[in-house]
Amino acid sequence: MLDKLFNPESIAVVGATPKEGKVGNTILRNLIAARKFRLYPVNPGYDKLLGLKCYPSVSEAESDTDTGIDLVVIAIPAGAVPEVLEECGNRGIKNIVVISAGFKEAGREGAVLESQLVSIGRRYHLNIVGPNCLGIINTHADLNATFGKTIPDRGSIAFLSQSGAFALAVIDWAKAAKVGFSKVVSLGNKAVLDECHFLEYLSNDRETGVIAMYLEDVSEGSRFMRVVRTISRRKPVVVMKSGKTEAGAKAASSHTGSIAGSADAYRAAFAQSGIVEAPSIQDLFDFSLTLSRIRSIGTGTGTGTGASTGGIAIVTNSGGPGVMAADAIEESGLKLADFERETLEKLLSLRLANSYNPVDIRGDATSELFGTVLDIVAADGHVGAIIAILSPTAPIEFDRAVDYLLKTDAKKPVIPVFMGGETVGAAVEELKRHGITNYFDPVRAVKAVSAVSAYQEMQQRALEPPHHFNIDTARLRAELPHTPVPGFELLKAYGIPVPAYGKATTADESLQLADRIGYPVAMKILSPDIIHKTDVGCVKLDVGREEVKRCFFEIMRRGEKYTSASRIEGVLVQEMVRGGKEVIIGMKRDRHFGPLLMFGLGGIYVEVFKDVSFRIAPLSRSDAIEMIRNVRAYRLLRGVRGEPMSDIDSLVELLLRFSQLCVEFPEILEADLNPIKVFEAGRGCAVVDVKLITRHPSHDL
Amino acid sequence: MLDKLFNPESIAVVGATPKEGKVGNTILRNLIAARKFRLYPVNPGYDKLLGLKCYPSVSEAESDTDTGIDLVVIAIPAGAVPEVLEECGNRGIKNIVVISAGFKEAGREGAVLESQLVSIGRRYHLNIVGPNCLGIINTHADLNATFGKTIPDRGSIAFLSQSGAFALAVIDWAKAAKVGFSKVVSLGNKAVLDECHFLEYLSNDRETGVIAMYLEDVSEGSRFMRVVRTISRRKPVVVMKSGKTEAGAKAASSHTGSIAGSADAYRAAFAQSGIVEAPSIQDLFDFSLTLSRIRSIGTGTGTGTGASTGGIAIVTNSGGPGVMAADAIEESGLKLADFERETLEKLLSLRLANSYNPVDIRGDATSELFGTVLDIVAADGHVGAIIAILSPTAPIEFDRAVDYLLKTDAKKPVIPVFMGGETVGAAVEELKRHGITNYFDPVRAVKAVSAVSAYQEMQQRALEPPHHFNIDTARLRAELPHTPVPGFELLKAYGIPVPAYGKATTADESLQLADRIGYPVAMKILSPDIIHKTDVGCVKLDVGREEVKRCFFEIMRRGEKYTSASRIEGVLVQEMVRGGKEVIIGMKRDRHFGPLLMFGLGGIYVEVFKDVSFRIAPLSRSDAIEMIRNVRAYRLLRGVRGEPMSDIDSLVELLLRFSQLCVEFPEILEADLNPIKVFEAGRGCAVVDVKLITRHPSHDL
Repeated sequence: MLDKLFNPESIAVVGATPKEGKVGNTILRNLIAARKFRLYPVNPGYDKLLGLKCYPSVSEAESDTDTGIDLVVIAIPAGAVPEVLEECGNRGIKNIVVISAGFKEAGREGAVLESQLVSIGRRYHLNIVGPNCLGIINTHADLNATFGKTIPDRGSIAFLSQSGAFALAVIDWAKAAKVGFSKVVSLGNKAVLDECHFLEYLSNDRETGVIAMYLEDVSEGSRFMRVVRTISRRKPVVVMKSGKTEAGAKAASSHTGSIAGSADAYRAAFAQSGIVEAPSIQDLFDFSLTLSRIRSIGTGTGTGTGASTGGIAIVTNSGGPGVMAADAIEESGLKLADFERETLEKLLSLRLANSYNPVDIRGDATSELFGTVLDIVAADGHVGAIIAILSPTAPIEFDRAVDYLLKTDAKKPVIPVFMGGETVGAAVEELKRHGITNYFDPVRAVKAVSAVSAYQEMQQRALEPPHHFNIDTARLRAELPHTPVPGFELLKAYGIPVPAYGKATTADESLQLADRIGYPVAMKILSPDIIHKTDVGCVKLDVGREEVKRCFFEIMRRGEKYTSASRIEGVLVQEMVRGGKEVIIGMKRDRHFGPLLMFGLGGIYVEVFKDVSFRIAPLSRSDAIEMIRNVRAYRLLRGVRGEPMSDIDSLVELLLRFSQLCVEFPEILEADLNPIKVFEAGRGCAVVDVKLITRHPSHDL
Repeated sequence: MLDKLFNPESIAVVGATPKEGKVGNTILRNLIAARKFRLYPVNPGYDKLLGLKCYPSVSEAESDTDTGIDLVVIAIPAGAVPEVLEECGNRGIKNIVVISAGFKEAGREGAVLESQLVSIGRRYHLNIVGPNCLGIINTHADLNATFGKTIPDRGSIAFLSQSGAFALAVIDWAKAAKVGFSKVVSLGNKAVLDECHFLEYLSNDRETGVIAMYLEDVSEGSRFMRVVRTISRRKPVVVMKSGKTEAGAKAASSHTGSIAGSADAYRAAFAQSGIVEAPSIQDLFDFSLTLSRIRSIGTGTGTGTGASTGGIAIVTNSGGPGVMAADAIEESGLKLADFERETLEKLLSLRLANSYNPVDIRGDATSELFGTVLDIVAADGHVGAIIAILSPTAPIEFDRAVDYLLKTDAKKPVIPVFMGGETVGAAVEELKRHGITNYFDPVRAVKAVSAVSAYQEMQQRALEPPHHFNIDTARLRAELPHTPVPGFELLKAYGIPVPAYGKATTADESLQLADRIGYPVAMKILSPDIIHKTDVGCVKLDVGREEVKRCFFEIMRRGEKYTSASRIEGVLVQEMVRGGKEVIIGMKRDRHFGPLLMFGLGGIYVEVFKDVSFRIAPLSRSDAIEMIRNVRAYRLLRGVRGEPMSDIDSLVELLLRFSQLCVEFPEILEADLNPIKVFEAGRGCAVVDVKLITRHPSHDL
């Protein structure tokens, strides 16, 4: 659909001008320089412009063509843009880049203009890039439809940027660093085309191997996740996300609400959709460059154990940096390859400084020895990739080292760490010509490799649909308000285990209920006004038969100190749950991604250690499993010090059911199931308390 | 003492040779190139060499001088080195660089040679660098006494490297990156001169402003700490430490022993001596370069609150990267400056995209506006440093931006993030000429600033001597073996609170003891063979009077299942300690640094979360306080959910006393005080159980 946008033959530039330094001038010059487009400058003030015929309007330009205009680039004041768009629509022109600023980013008037732009775009099905953007680049078509003066080298990385100024900086840097791009898109205000449209286009773009994005927000969270999830299977999507660090969350009504922030939602969404997240700009391009040539750390034809994902081998002529790399590997969760016996025998016969991994070929090693060792190590079935570190010692001829490295790299990925400046310069250039990035710092090389490993892990994960349970939500929604304790009732309806309970409004009723439930019982006040029930003495635990009525009166009396009697619904009489470990499951509805689920172990672990994990609902089974495994306190559920293992399966099930509940009840904004007691394996779990915050506070469940 | 080593006038090169590419040739050529030294090539095979008179021996060379030889560089086979050193000693030559390899690093024979080298060095008080090193460089004296062909530019960073090959790489890189050094020292095997000697010399070296080190180990831990502690007050010491990641600690006898590793000891020692630790090579030089011009983030003449340490201001023409910087600042624990009202008013009048911090001057801002805003922000009393981010937009002229930046930087440190390649190239070079490093990635700039902040914090910390308590250790050591429970007795002697206790060898004795102590009591077996006492049923808690005798028999009977009766010393009868929070304090004697103390909250926090802090004994009071505050679970001691605060003062006191104990009893290799119960503030703490592992396992306390 965006093919002609990126591969136009005829292009009109609205706002073209002979005045140097003006945006409309630079754009036209850029397009002329390619010498391959039919160009139509549009400016009523001129007949000719930079040697080209100039038109008073897009319409007149269009009528002068045989096959129409493929792309219009607009660089005129914002107020005049809608009219031009109308013209385009009328003339059947589909692809438009609106460079002009002065839209939503510029206040209320601009926002009105932008909504006009959107509605015209919708009416005519226009592909509008921007507004308020730098433009687009397709290096493989020599298309530089931006007001930046540089077109980057060709390469296989597509770069999408939500900041035009940043795109400008990256292009300038990339040109100097000889980093190539396939396409560059400045997203601007994303009024019509957003990151998803470009992602979809790029997923089928043969020139693009890796998609690198700088994002400040996403337009539609769940669409974004759906789109990326498919694409990331085939092409790595690397994202550097920036966005306002949230000022301390305002007093949230739920526990989950006070912990979960928008950054957590993004992180969860990225992880679930297979994005490789880059913590910094340097990482964004380190990761993208490495992923553009290495997609997996496989072990090739090895026969050893752990054959599928290989370990990392280090070959170095300088002990220190070898150890730095080994340390970084350990820290990043990658693993150092354990050499096969045959490999070791070969290496030992070479009398190196160290034949074990990291292999130290010693400071006096020649390029030949370097090549020989690379070859031996690459043949090892446990090795998935090699980090090759060379200091500029006298015996190393770097041109020859490059030859050896390329030969080995054809068989197994080699990441070069040629350390130095002038001495290694030519070799680094030569590697670059072969698409291989050199790192001065071994730690950076390791980080890049671990991005590959993260991508590979994501690809190996099964693509499961979210789990689905059959729930008659319409009936449930109708019945809920008439149930005594809607929160618990809702959980029960979703098959989530809750202790037996009932609501009592009189002391006699509480005794009848308790008799039916069995002793001892727990008793808690039911009132939307009393949140910290325990603190105000409105919770009684382990209540025996003889105490029930007294407790009922006491709870009511204490409750009435805090709220009027009319706001007390009664007393919850509940089966007393004993033993088990406490966990918390919560939800906060994120503005972009919808229900953000949280999991953690109760009390201290959540409050002090912030030891929680997040995922966006709906969850697949493996999402749920990961959520539980990702908290550091997971070991407590597995059982430490000989304790029995907790019933993790029942927690997975609970998460899946709760996930569906949150999706099907969008009126719930925040939720805490807290505490949930998890018993020994096979014995399930039970939600002891629940708090649901709805859009209408008076209807909280 | 090392002055002539770095500033020689006359230099002999032993092993000088006309053969190109040989080490002895390169060194001589490097020295000739400086055209300022009197040079004495030594090689019995030649009369003349590269136009210089050549001598058959150092002695003959020396007798040909008027004022002796200041420096001898040796590059001959290892076996011949001792003889040359003898000659040097005899001739009163003091400074020697031994380039030759083939010493300790090369196996047993080499080790013998090295010990010869050491003893000759001692005998004649020789300053020997190496052996097995690249040599030394003093750029300010044009001295390149290495076999590397490049001499770096002059600068204020001294670089010490424990790896010669790595030094070679760094010099090569620095030359290309125009990073200057004052001195470069390749430490080699550190047989005689080690990092401390050079640190001491460099601390008084006027050409050196910052000391950057690449270390694999330290020669003497406590001397290292003592030396660095003094120096780092005056000059930043930045260290990148690499070293074998430890293979999983072998089955340790104590809890602390199984957790504490050598990396923990280094990290603690670095923190206590004021070192700025760099996690990677890139960081090593980023941090050093920034510290070479910025020592503190002060607020200048500001009048606002928080005047001493300033916040960071961000000024950017590109929103996205500004937010990246702000996010990184938040994460790194630095703080964003909160502008004074006057500043805000000025900025608001300029109608920027955002006048609050991060200040967004917008993509269409000119260099002048950039300058104006820098000026306004620098005048703010809350601002300590400015990160200035510029994308290469059309209106920005980078040469003018540099002028503005330099003008502001004279008043308050500005860290430039000029993002781009060619467009910003000249500006970046110009900044470099003024000693200012540019960063492409805002996150890297923030990391460098946070290194300054870490250095500043360290300097603000009071230099306290370790706390000292008067203990008659000689008497204690004599009496201890005769006490019933030496472990507890030792703690008591150091004023460490332990519950009342005694040892019973008969049931009657246990009853008498318990009567004296008061009920209930705890009873535990005393046997060096039974480590997990609870697991084998040899611990009884909450024992009442009527149960004491039965428990005694049961403990003994159970104990005898695990060891012979002769290995059971009896039963410990102890006051039953109730309540309080559990913490653990432990010690492991580190090979390099001595007693490594560990602190953490008991049980889960230590085992699952590895939430512990480390310091090297002896501790100062503020070390002890930091140890306690540095664990994440510290909040639990402060009291959460309305719990009372624990008696943290008593823990500080306990740490100080235990620290001294560990220093004064070097025979203790590992120790666990676990659990320690800490009560409410004012109520102290008590060590409930203690395990001390000594050099002689049978004498464990």
